[in-house]
Amino acid sequence: MTERSTPLFLRAVRGEPVERTPIWVMRQAGRYLPEYREVRSKTTFLGLCKSPELAAEVTLQPIRRFALDAAIIFSDILVPVEAMGIPLDYNPGPVLGRTTRSKEDIDALTIPDPVKDMGFVMDAIRMFIREMPDTPILGFAGAPFTLAAYMIEGAGSKNYAVTKQFLYEQPKQARRLLAKLARTVSDHLIAQVEAGAAAVQIFDSWAGHLSRDDYLTFALPFTIEIVDNVKKAGAPIIVFAKGAHSSLDELSQCGADVLGVDWTLPLDVAAEMTKQRVALQGNLDPCVLLGPVENIERQVQRILNEAQAIEKGHVFNLGHGILPPTPPEHMAALVDAVKRNGRRRTP
Amino acid sequence: MTERSTPLFLRAVRGEPVERTPIWVMRQAGRYLPEYREVRSKTTFLGLCKSPELAAEVTLQPIRRFALDAAIIFSDILVPVEAMGIPLDYNPGPVLGRTTRSKEDIDALTIPDPVKDMGFVMDAIRMFIREMPDTPILGFAGAPFTLAAYMIEGAGSKNYAVTKQFLYEQPKQARRLLAKLARTVSDHLIAQVEAGAAAVQIFDSWAGHLSRDDYLTFALPFTIEIVDNVKKAGAPIIVFAKGAHSSLDELSQCGADVLGVDWTLPLDVAAEMTKQRVALQGNLDPCVLLGPVENIERQVQRILNEAQAIEKGHVFNLGHGILPPTPPEHMAALVDAVKRNGRRRTP
Repeated sequence: MTERSTPLFLRAVRGEPVERTPIWVMRQAGRYLPEYREVRSKTTFLGLCKSPELAAEVTLQPIRRFALDAAIIFSDILVPVEAMGIPLDYNPGPVLGRTTRSKEDIDALTIPDPVKDMGFVMDAIRMFIREMPDTPILGFAGAPFTLAAYMIEGAGSKNYAVTKQFLYEQPKQARRLLAKLARTVSDHLIAQVEAGAAAVQIFDSWAGHLSRDDYLTFALPFTIEIVDNVKKAGAPIIVFAKGAHSSLDELSQCGADVLGVDWTLPLDVAAEMTKQRVALQGNLDPCVLLGPVENIERQVQRILNEAQAIEKGHVFNLGHGILPPTPPEHMAALVDAVKRNGRRRTP
Repeated sequence: MTERSTPLFLRAVRGEPVERTPIWVMRQAGRYLPEYREVRSKTTFLGLCKSPELAAEVTLQPIRRFALDAAIIFSDILVPVEAMGIPLDYNPGPVLGRTTRSKEDIDALTIPDPVKDMGFVMDAIRMFIREMPDTPILGFAGAPFTLAAYMIEGAGSKNYAVTKQFLYEQPKQARRLLAKLARTVSDHLIAQVEAGAAAVQIFDSWAGHLSRDDYLTFALPFTIEIVDNVKKAGAPIIVFAKGAHSSLDELSQCGADVLGVDWTLPLDVAAEMTKQRVALQGNLDPCVLLGPVENIERQVQRILNEAQAIEKGHVFNLGHGILPPTPPEHMAALVDAVKRNGRRRTP
């Protein structure tokens, strides 16, 4: 395959020459689009995740509108948790049917067969590829710490106090839970790559709640285990440990090709902290998309300037998921600003 | 005054020799103490803030129990906002009687007279000093960005999206609001120092939601204005801009004597980022106090080790407010661990 035929997104991920910065947007399929709300109005959130046709359709929607450089399959990080035996509902945030806080709770969790128990995700990936073979499609999963936090709390939390209390009081059981999650997530990501995912992203959404010491003890080792397992499947890996700034040096040595960076850490600082070992992805504050186009353009320009300090590739993205009240025309302005101003790189 | 007669806390704040690390705890007067809940059960939260006798009493409670090295007057960062004309309620989080989102809303805000409109805070400080003259008492206030965020949202928020939209759409009005708040907060802190506060702390609780660019534009200039105003009153100033890691270099040049550090940034890294310009305060994760004493002691030891890299003083504290479910005996274990292991410093 010549360089020219490799999609822009994959070249940036690998630190290869690009004619401009590629862009995709976290949660780009979702509630800010009327065509998504239309599909969503006819089913439940989990019903949407479990219908390959509908999941592929809403994954296609933003690509049709905005000509983004990559897509991410529509699903949810808690899909594998349900497959492990935890009843799951959304209201609109996730509500788990039971909490996981003891040896017995952990014993009861099964390791799902990704194809048999979550085949709808792989089917959706294949359907997307059939419709849009030239757009790289990302698979994804939650990192063990973030999934464990949901399972221990039974829902989202303001400060994850119950989760941390569990880690401190029952570190051995916590490690058992995290290891089961690492196995489940590894299998799920490998299955997505085998179904055609061009790359995968691991979301550690609650990493920023942990001290560096706790992150290195309870989170990073299990992310590394997944990266080791999934690397063999051959697709590039993006790790987004939101807020884990103090562990970026270690994270940049975890084997991932790209690290996601939230909007509170400038990319030039992140490039220095990661010692130029990896490509970086980010990092516009999603709230910027609620404000005027002029400010969107100014902030995109600032981020592109900061990204010039990155020696490996840069993938433009938000620093967290797009917000439901975002006007679609502001998303268009963002994509346009990146496409007009994104940098040529010839490393 | 000889060094020996200056309280430990004040010597650490000024980077002078200490025989061990001093400790106080954010929100040390509060819901985790049964004697606080007893007082609180007889009045509203705001009623408690506005009664100098009761506010002084709950400020004294943790000092009687734990022999901490400093006290912080019991009050709330929104007290000056109410004095500006915004009705205020707690349920249990703050609920403001109206939002502030237009030129007219900002015009309607008055600059309070701190003594006439918030005299109960200064009275409480004087009462505390009468009871416990050897324990330094801190005054405090919220930083303009954090107060503005409450006023724009009308309550706390998950992501401060409405606040940021206002900053981006109406930057001129945002600056007018922030300037009014800087004036109000300056006057309030100066009045607290005049009433006898040995030091003051400025809380920028939501700073960590902003990108570096937005923090430097909309938050830091107004904190600097306050520090400039209050410095003339002569008391040391602590600035705690939670999560504003990317702006620590600039923050360490804002004129504050001490910077607070949350638990996600190790103190040795913070000392390097602030180029040893200031003393540092922090930074145990409040959730650690929910877990076993063994882990409390281990993490205190880790923090004291990291703090050896600080050339100026170190004040031990939590990295955020103490949580209501904290067992008081765990607070005792924390104070004990710091008192047993805190470092002698002879700069």
